[in-house]
Amino acid sequence: MTKRITVPVNDSHTGTRNEDERWQTALTSIAPNSILIRGYPVDELMGRLSFADAVYLLLMGELPTPAIGRMLNAVLVSSLDHGVTPPSTLAARNVATSGAPLKDCVAAGILAFGPHHGGDIETCMRFLDAGLTLVRSGRSLQQAADTLVDGCLRDGQTPPGFGHRFHTRDPRAARLFQMALELELEGEHVRMLRATEGVIEARKDAIGRHLPVNVDGAIAAVCADLGFAYELGNAIFLISRLPGLIAHSHEERSRQPPMRQIDPKDHDYDGSLARRLPETRK
Amino acid sequence: MTKRITVPVNDSHTGTRNEDERWQTALTSIAPNSILIRGYPVDELMGRLSFADAVYLLLMGELPTPAIGRMLNAVLVSSLDHGVTPPSTLAARNVATSGAPLKDCVAAGILAFGPHHGGDIETCMRFLDAGLTLVRSGRSLQQAADTLVDGCLRDGQTPPGFGHRFHTRDPRAARLFQMALELELEGEHVRMLRATEGVIEARKDAIGRHLPVNVDGAIAAVCADLGFAYELGNAIFLISRLPGLIAHSHEERSRQPPMRQIDPKDHDYDGSLARRLPETRK
Amino acid sequence: MTKRITVPVNDSHTGTRNEDERWQTALTSIAPNSILIRGYPVDELMGRLSFADAVYLLLMGELPTPAIGRMLNAVLVSSLDHGVTPPSTLAARNVATSGAPLKDCVAAGILAFGPHHGGDIETCMRFLDAGLTLVRSGRSLQQAADTLVDGCLRDGQTPPGFGHRFHTRDPRAARLFQMALELELEGEHVRMLRATEGVIEARKDAIGRHLPVNVDGAIAAVCADLGFAYELGNAIFLISRLPGLIAHSHEERSRQPPMRQIDPKDHDYDGSLARRLPETRK
Amino acid sequence: MTKRITVPVNDSHTGTRNEDERWQTALTSIAPNSILIRGYPVDELMGRLSFADAVYLLLMGELPTPAIGRMLNAVLVSSLDHGVTPPSTLAARNVATSGAPLKDCVAAGILAFGPHHGGDIETCMRFLDAGLTLVRSGRSLQQAADTLVDGCLRDGQTPPGFGHRFHTRDPRAARLFQMALELELEGEHVRMLRATEGVIEARKDAIGRHLPVNVDGAIAAVCADLGFAYELGNAIFLISRLPGLIAHSHEERSRQPPMRQIDPKDHDYDGSLARRLPETRK
Repeated sequence: MTKRITVPVNDSHTGTRNEDERWQTALTSIAPNSILIRGYPVDELMGRLSFADAVYLLLMGELPTPAIGRMLNAVLVSSLDHGVTPPSTLAARNVATSGAPLKDCVAAGILAFGPHHGGDIETCMRFLDAGLTLVRSGRSLQQAADTLVDGCLRDGQTPPGFGHRFHTRDPRAARLFQMALELELEGEHVRMLRATEGVIEARKDAIGRHLPVNVDGAIAAVCADLGFAYELGNAIFLISRLPGLIAHSHEERSRQPPMRQIDPKDHDYDGSLARRLPETRK
Repeated sequence: MTKRITVPVNDSHTGTRNEDERWQTALTSIAPNSILIRGYPVDELMGRLSFADAVYLLLMGELPTPAIGRMLNAVLVSSLDHGVTPPSTLAARNVATSGAPLKDCVAAGILAFGPHHGGDIETCMRFLDAGLTLVRSGRSLQQAADTLVDGCLRDGQTPPGFGHRFHTRDPRAARLFQMALELELEGEHVRMLRATEGVIEARKDAIGRHLPVNVDGAIAAVCADLGFAYELGNAIFLISRLPGLIAHSHEERSRQPPMRQIDPKDHDYDGSLARRLPETRK
Repeated sequence: MTKRITVPVNDSHTGTRNEDERWQTALTSIAPNSILIRGYPVDELMGRLSFADAVYLLLMGELPTPAIGRMLNAVLVSSLDHGVTPPSTLAARNVATSGAPLKDCVAAGILAFGPHHGGDIETCMRFLDAGLTLVRSGRSLQQAADTLVDGCLRDGQTPPGFGHRFHTRDPRAARLFQMALELELEGEHVRMLRATEGVIEARKDAIGRHLPVNVDGAIAAVCADLGFAYELGNAIFLISRLPGLIAHSHEERSRQPPMRQIDPKDHDYDGSLARRLPETRK
Repeated sequence: MTKRITVPVNDSHTGTRNEDERWQTALTSIAPNSILIRGYPVDELMGRLSFADAVYLLLMGELPTPAIGRMLNAVLVSSLDHGVTPPSTLAARNVATSGAPLKDCVAAGILAFGPHHGGDIETCMRFLDAGLTLVRSGRSLQQAADTLVDGCLRDGQTPPGFGHRFHTRDPRAARLFQMALELELEGEHVRMLRATEGVIEARKDAIGRHLPVNVDGAIAAVCADLGFAYELGNAIFLISRLPGLIAHSHEERSRQPPMRQIDPKDHDYDGSLARRLPETRK
């Protein structure tokens, strides 16, 4: 694939400066003793918006509704951590065992959010939009889902947003769908994903294995319904998982000897027993 | 400075495996269709805890009180973004202009949280603890603060947590102190920092310039009072600023031509005008 | 674009281990007091192979001929550094100004080898192979080059390997072509690139600007003729530029104050005056 | 540890520009069609200097002697790769298994050059200089080495540059010492290291285990004798190992399925059998 290469005609290498070289940003304005995020004083946001609300404001430009704020908090909680076996966690732990500082461990973990891990969210958002384009061309949701699944099977590909290494029914996906419904935020992307889920379930025998909706698919559909740009869908996952990378890096640095060989299969869990939220938090 | 080097005596290079090589993690347990974070099902946390609450749970092992949850949300909002000029933002934008994916931009930005930027929080936590050790040895807060400041001046160093490139009165620090007071979370680290602030203010003429408490200092004191480990203080800043790195990388990728030379001084803000939160959000 | 997602059917989350889970590597074998790189004892290679020779051995599996060794040394020297303005150099310097360690600066710089910078080499290798596929289908080199350039112009794209921000005749590309000729290593990819250069030159008026072969194009053609895989073409650039990233990070850390705002246009060169190699080195 | 924080007094946030804000670089000067590295045209260096020679020129400012060029080539070959078990290699492979591009794998690998891995070189250079300061204060090499080792044992630390996970006699260290002698480049740092080696060997029973000189120690001593700054000692290791990170990332991406759990102990070597350099290359 070739791509556009910009060949500037200016003479920037000479160190001269043109008046028209100023550039613009619309995110945050800084003046002495004043920090305005999307126009709002940050100290006024503190204590009044949740962090998830403030993330929405920064990325989307406007305050979220309370429902959207609750939804985004849930999305961010959903992928907080997934134990020691994801490649991002193992990359972070392998950097940690060398004695490198925590930020280096975390940066390495983020680099492992490749196409097969985290990056899947953008792929799924595009996949759902391809289906919705069919719907806008006159197909039913069901027909569009059939076409999407046909395409994947023909190319020998797993539909993005489906299948999981461990889970046959991802509890996080189910909870996100439930909340989208309750908060009246279920939109066309969630419906497209659910229709695709139905088609895949119906063709289970032809596919030869169970391919449940995974949390990436659910996040993709919810984020698309909330209006996030494709690459910001991946970014939401990144924000969500960052504390997990931090927690594992910190645990590795504080609990394990340095320079150990980290075998992802030889670990045991020795943390808190299973427990439920107290009634007051429900 | 030399350091301990581990020279394992096992024969791990031979590929043999000892029974006692299993290792432990206390963060998250994974079983098919079940994800328990610190013992709680993640799908039960979704919709019931804010993301900040869940971060506290993952890093500290227990649910936060509502007051701690509100405080941590405010801390995370405080450093969400600081415009285009921090080194981390410029590192991220310079990676973005090469056409690299968003996660690469963000990872580069995180690497710029060096000792002078973000990493300052851990330094300040240790600084405050040095003062509190003096208090526990019998000095008054005021005497301990005097000793801390004396030490810095003697070494020609700015006390960690003080001074800012732009702000003479950092609005984020003031708001964090106010909230700690209102939420009855002000502890000995905040008091130590405020005492140090008083000493520095009183010696303004000797110091020769104004050195206000900055947001790093306030975050350090609040996080120390909440019981976070030193390196987790830095991690809180990292979680807070990540959306800023994402927003700038996305803006650079979507709004600017590739391969431009990014001059941090030649920019203008063209975003939303200054505005206030609606009454319903206060 | 959707892609294949692997859904392993094993039960690796349970910590059990299958006999058939062993995996293979063909690069380096380690035994006590013995390190064999592609079968050769590393201590026997030391002092007998140049670093470039050893890089070729490690990446390609066999010793290079003396001519290939000389060519690869020249390729690696060609992109050693290009001053302060490339995005990778600026990313590294912005990380350095935060006080981060040298390896962090370098890692951030590497992340800026995006599609528009360094990553171009793989694109150009694929571009040349597309032309050679036409040749193998019966077209002449000239016809294939015409078709390649037609395709780029139709899509509004600059042909990969052509054009440069600063140089109208890249001295590095010219030298690589000269050496390939002298060392009798000029192959079909170099010939394809030169034919494309001729077509672009002939259509200069239609294109509206001068688009000379750049060093990325020359490296791409030479590496392809040497048999490197596409992504290893990018890797050769990465090895070549690493010392530049190191030198700039070190200069920033040792010569500049921390936390400065780095303007790529406001710099001057104050190093050694222009000089020539002594006769004995020619 | 507190540190100096720079609080600039300029008004850079306002976008104004002072005449005195220009900054200097002494590495490379760029003009249209001209690239001078330390004053030399890069196209004149190509084909005449080995890559290692050019690295020396860029980092140190002057051409190396032929002996130094040979020595630096050997140093760079020495740490080219060390199989799949180093943390840097495992970090790179874990990023690769997510489908991330090669440069991301390599950047993550570099982040794992922490204090216990690669970063040891700087520590050892400082350790040897501490010994040489004693020598310049009137102690003999032997006395200085005794003092160095005493200090480590008292603090429960392994002397930097000694001990290895796998090797009891590191063949790379032995070859570097041999070459330094033959090339008449053995200097005071190598002698200090050898004296320390003798002290450690003599006290083997007290130490309770064998602590041979490792390749980090040998590189540290040789680089210090060549005049490299501390952090450039680490950088030499980084240049040396980069091809190893590339080779493993490429092998992982091209030979293994994505999203696998990488167990460092379950691998086998299936590459070339042990072989010797042909007589013509010796």
